[in-house]
Amino acid sequence: MPVPDAPVTGAPTDSSAPPAGGPARPSQLDPAIAARLRRSADGLVAAVVRQHDSGEVLMVAWMDDEALHRTLTTGRATYWSRSRQEYWVKGATSGHHQYVRSVALDCDGDAVLVSVEQVGAACHTGHRTCFFEELPVTGADAS
Amino acid sequence: MPVPDAPVTGAPTDSSAPPAGGPARPSQLDPAIAARLRRSADGLVAAVVRQHDSGEVLMVAWMDDEALHRTLTTGRATYWSRSRQEYWVKGATSGHHQYVRSVALDCDGDAVLVSVEQVGAACHTGHRTCFFEELPVTGADAS
Repeated sequence: MPVPDAPVTGAPTDSSAPPAGGPARPSQLDPAIAARLRRSADGLVAAVVRQHDSGEVLMVAWMDDEALHRTLTTGRATYWSRSRQEYWVKGATSGHHQYVRSVALDCDGDAVLVSVEQVGAACHTGHRTCFFEELPVTGADAS
Repeated sequence: MPVPDAPVTGAPTDSSAPPAGGPARPSQLDPAIAARLRRSADGLVAAVVRQHDSGEVLMVAWMDDEALHRTLTTGRATYWSRSRQEYWVKGATSGHHQYVRSVALDCDGDAVLVSVEQVGAACHTGHRTCFFEELPVTGADAS
């Protein structure tokens, strides 16, 4: 029986392809942090943004590794635009800057909580928060 | 030249396949709400969960249409487990129930903010919040 040169079971390997759930784009992010991220299929984690002192939840956006790196190292909240497929620094065009006070990673690595000093409105509609539309809760099982 | 029975341009149609970005699974969710969701490729929106009175951000989980429907109509926070590919009612096994007080949809329909009465710890590690690990912010560009 011939001895194969390489294992014949398992998926074919391609060292140029990123691992499933790996970084979507090159990044300077600290490898120790990158190793803890559990990314979506498109390489992103959810970023929940709140006003640092009041705790008000302002918006949710998306970060790849490099957006997180820039957020941590520039002090300016930076995201990945899924629709435009590019980085955006909050406030760069609107003037509604987000100055980063702290960032926390969640227990399973698929979300970060970004505490900011929000200048003006967080929402592009002009609302302070993007979560301005209440949905009807009809369940009565309250504590 | 023969006349084809069906158009020969465009992608093949398969009426059983959900539209891109559409619901991943059948749901009883109000169609007016469903029409406003902007789902990820796997049919989910992000659910940011906070304690209703203190505003503390407790966790991020994921909802498909039916998980949102159940959350709105049962008053118990219900999510879609990406790893187990099934619905889960928070607290069903841990006893750490989440009684829903309000739900808000964000401006672009890809996230909901769920305000709850959290019983005990939200995090499976035993921490009150899943966001217990601070990342280093080295940028000095504060306001």
